Amino acid sequence: MSFANFRSFYNRLQNFRDTHSLLQWDSEVMMPSSGRLARSHQIAEMTKLIHELSTGEEFKSIINLALNDLETNSDIENLASKKKELEIIQETLVKQSKLPTEFVQELSQKTNLAQSKWEEAKKQKDFSLFSSTLEELVQLAIRQAEYYGYEKERYDSLIDDYEKSATADFLSRLFDDLKKDLIPIVANAKAYSNPFLKKIPIDLQKSFCESIPSQLGLTEDLSRLDISSHPFSTSLGPKDKRITTRYDESDPLSSIFGVMHETGHSLYEVGLSEMEEAPSPIAEFLSLGIHESQSRLWENQVGRSSEFWMYHYPIALHAWNLKESELPFDAFINYIRSVEKTKIRVEADPVTYNLHIILRFEIERDLIAQKIKVSELPEIWNAKMKESFGLTIDNPAEGVLQDVHWSMAAFGYFPTYALGNIYSAQLYSAFLKENPTFPKTLSTKGDTSSLLQWLKKNVHHIGKMYSVNELMVKATGELPTSKYLVESLTNFR
Amino acid sequence: MSFANFRSFYNRLQNFRDTHSLLQWDSEVMMPSSGRLARSHQIAEMTKLIHELSTGEEFKSIINLALNDLETNSDIENLASKKKELEIIQETLVKQSKLPTEFVQELSQKTNLAQSKWEEAKKQKDFSLFSSTLEELVQLAIRQAEYYGYEKERYDSLIDDYEKSATADFLSRLFDDLKKDLIPIVANAKAYSNPFLKKIPIDLQKSFCESIPSQLGLTEDLSRLDISSHPFSTSLGPKDKRITTRYDESDPLSSIFGVMHETGHSLYEVGLSEMEEAPSPIAEFLSLGIHESQSRLWENQVGRSSEFWMYHYPIALHAWNLKESELPFDAFINYIRSVEKTKIRVEADPVTYNLHIILRFEIERDLIAQKIKVSELPEIWNAKMKESFGLTIDNPAEGVLQDVHWSMAAFGYFPTYALGNIYSAQLYSAFLKENPTFPKTLSTKGDTSSLLQWLKKNVHHIGKMYSVNELMVKATGELPTSKYLVESLTNFR
Repeated sequence: MSFANFRSFYNRLQNFRDTHSLLQWDSEVMMPSSGRLARSHQIAEMTKLIHELSTGEEFKSIINLALNDLETNSDIENLASKKKELEIIQETLVKQSKLPTEFVQELSQKTNLAQSKWEEAKKQKDFSLFSSTLEELVQLAIRQAEYYGYEKERYDSLIDDYEKSATADFLSRLFDDLKKDLIPIVANAKAYSNPFLKKIPIDLQKSFCESIPSQLGLTEDLSRLDISSHPFSTSLGPKDKRITTRYDESDPLSSIFGVMHETGHSLYEVGLSEMEEAPSPIAEFLSLGIHESQSRLWENQVGRSSEFWMYHYPIALHAWNLKESELPFDAFINYIRSVEKTKIRVEADPVTYNLHIILRFEIERDLIAQKIKVSELPEIWNAKMKESFGLTIDNPAEGVLQDVHWSMAAFGYFPTYALGNIYSAQLYSAFLKENPTFPKTLSTKGDTSSLLQWLKKNVHHIGKMYSVNELMVKATGELPTSKYLVESLTNFR
Repeated sequence: MSFANFRSFYNRLQNFRDTHSLLQWDSEVMMPSSGRLARSHQIAEMTKLIHELSTGEEFKSIINLALNDLETNSDIENLASKKKELEIIQETLVKQSKLPTEFVQELSQKTNLAQSKWEEAKKQKDFSLFSSTLEELVQLAIRQAEYYGYEKERYDSLIDDYEKSATADFLSRLFDDLKKDLIPIVANAKAYSNPFLKKIPIDLQKSFCESIPSQLGLTEDLSRLDISSHPFSTSLGPKDKRITTRYDESDPLSSIFGVMHETGHSLYEVGLSEMEEAPSPIAEFLSLGIHESQSRLWENQVGRSSEFWMYHYPIALHAWNLKESELPFDAFINYIRSVEKTKIRVEADPVTYNLHIILRFEIERDLIAQKIKVSELPEIWNAKMKESFGLTIDNPAEGVLQDVHWSMAAFGYFPTYALGNIYSAQLYSAFLKENPTFPKTLSTKGDTSSLLQWLKKNVHHIGKMYSVNELMVKATGELPTSKYLVESLTNFR
């Protein structure tokens, strides 16, 4: 009964979390503009309620009773998995409890204020408008790391919030290899220009784009695709996953890859919800890197393959009302697999994207270790851009000020994007070894169901039962390595 | 400070109520089909939370502290209005507290089960499949009335849940007059047939329909119009009102009048949110009858007037891609103002609709007074249909089983629909006396802003400060009377 009480409390929490997600989804996708102020209060109310319930004494005592029960009754079904559920929750609670309440409030206030400072500085292209704020945020992150505690370096304890058990040393080994291999690919790249000779009306784009999620297994009975200014995916229930995109008349591919990316995230969430334990702490995403691996796998490994387009190119041409001569297949594929030196991370191709991340990782790590100062950031950023890309940064809006993450004090978040790429390539390669006929099926029938089944079995339905390294070894036979990512990127051009 | 605490608690409640409304709106309008089960749990969780907060000891003690504070400090600003707020809340709490918890649970369980029984009986056209369930619901309603207490007859205390201070005697006086005047209109009616000679594609209907809310003052920054199987309006925040409609290719007017109806409801909600006290118990809708008066006023008094269509007819023709010869103005207006003897309430015209309601009122009243038995209902229903409409009912699906209300034990709800009609005609007539040029402005410019301003001042911004009778006397100079409704319906045809 004690464990059932735990599950029932957790269920209640999950209902409120899903409701919270609906408030946010609606505000991005549906809400009339004047609804904003009241909605922010509704969201704050829900956030507070969830925080109180998930950190309150009632929940703690329910967890302790359940733990006691499991320890004294060894004949309980699925004992190990139940213990693991409680351990996961306890670990989170223990980590949270290390931060004094006043510190949490200060962090929340400072990051709230920092948003507008950062926006203004970026708009004015003036780093000095943000530097003292960023300095405060770095100091807060350092205090946070000290509260958490760490073995080797402070930054490790911050990474742990996003990618449990990854350390700066581990990332640095992975990323050094990756960087070494990618720099020559970028140096030799020949950027292919946009092959679309005319604009494609959004209505025509939609008909193709809206067919993608269900093609990949995210069926219409449990999902919907809408438009929002910043594409995202969210889960509003075990069988209610929503994704968004935006359309660009000059580049139909941007929404297609966006939709494949968000579909990958949502397919993972569908799989997690299918676990027999769900909802439970064990049926949640394993890490941000693994979550990202699922989006990147569909976007880059599948979506940017020639095989995918062998099947979909004629369908897309038809939807876009284009003749083959207006968009030759070779020019189209060259563009899809093109590498270009870009200053902006979110506009980067699958190759250079990783270099953008590694640059941020190196800087964050040194910042938190107090090896470099905030005031030196623009200089360091620009030097690294020169080193990795050969590019000169003219103003900080296209340099150190381009991303929102640091203004949220989310130090340790960036590495998970590159980890996602690394995991995705390694997983896809392992899948292909077991399913050598997949590319053929993909190119002739557009059928990706065997891939989804494999991912469900090896990633989605694992939830948090294993660590990331355990999952990777079980699924691919190896610890995380950058070699499969490099392999998959070498014939980008 | 005590009163501020009360307001702050109320604010919190309102945030949760609006969130609850979003969960429901989304489930009717946006949610993918497989989301249903989890959503029902999310809604139940939210319902429970709101119930606990709004009836719990914390709230009661906050109310008592605030009341004490107001009683001991006579120099508080807006003292009377603040006292009134607390009185309204206390009255609700006192009424709720009269129902034993076990009774509330039994009522909720029985009405839940009754839904499917009623649906099945209606589908099978067999009253016997529902009669024992309905008998139980009547007995529960009788117990409920006994718990509440009453002066004259049980039914009064049930009406009070929907239309405070209306009594069966009061309704019976109003309705007897109304019935006497309407029966000859119906008897002499010449039903005009649908003048649309071809189907109007839904896309063309939308362009006209979607322009209506903002034309009437429900602007796009604070509202949206979507499609759902059962049209409704809901408030998700002070500046976030949502309405829905459905389209019928054979009859574009059904969605237009539906949209005007729901717009009327939402304009009232906008007005209530504009009150300086909002959110507060005083800034809520006064009664269901008054709420309905706002929808009926825009739908029937404005929307079915020749003046409205003098302006909008050419616009509509253009939107529908029709020539004038395909839909002559006279045939169009005749159809809009046509009276037809119908068996089904929700399909009824503005004249016969009231007779449908009066029939239900008479039956409910006798049921709750135990003057008639559930087993006699089909016979009584059919006899009354013969008497008022001259129609023969062949099966109970188009007779006594047509409406959902009794399966929800909502005895006392029906009268508010006819009250809405009565209030709407009386309010509109008073407005026209003060604004004699309105019909001219409506027919030449389509401008209804003076009407909205008048309604805001005389109805919307009153909230719950007055009783219904006080509001009607202040706004129109008279207690509620059916004469203006009859007047407005006499030149229906």
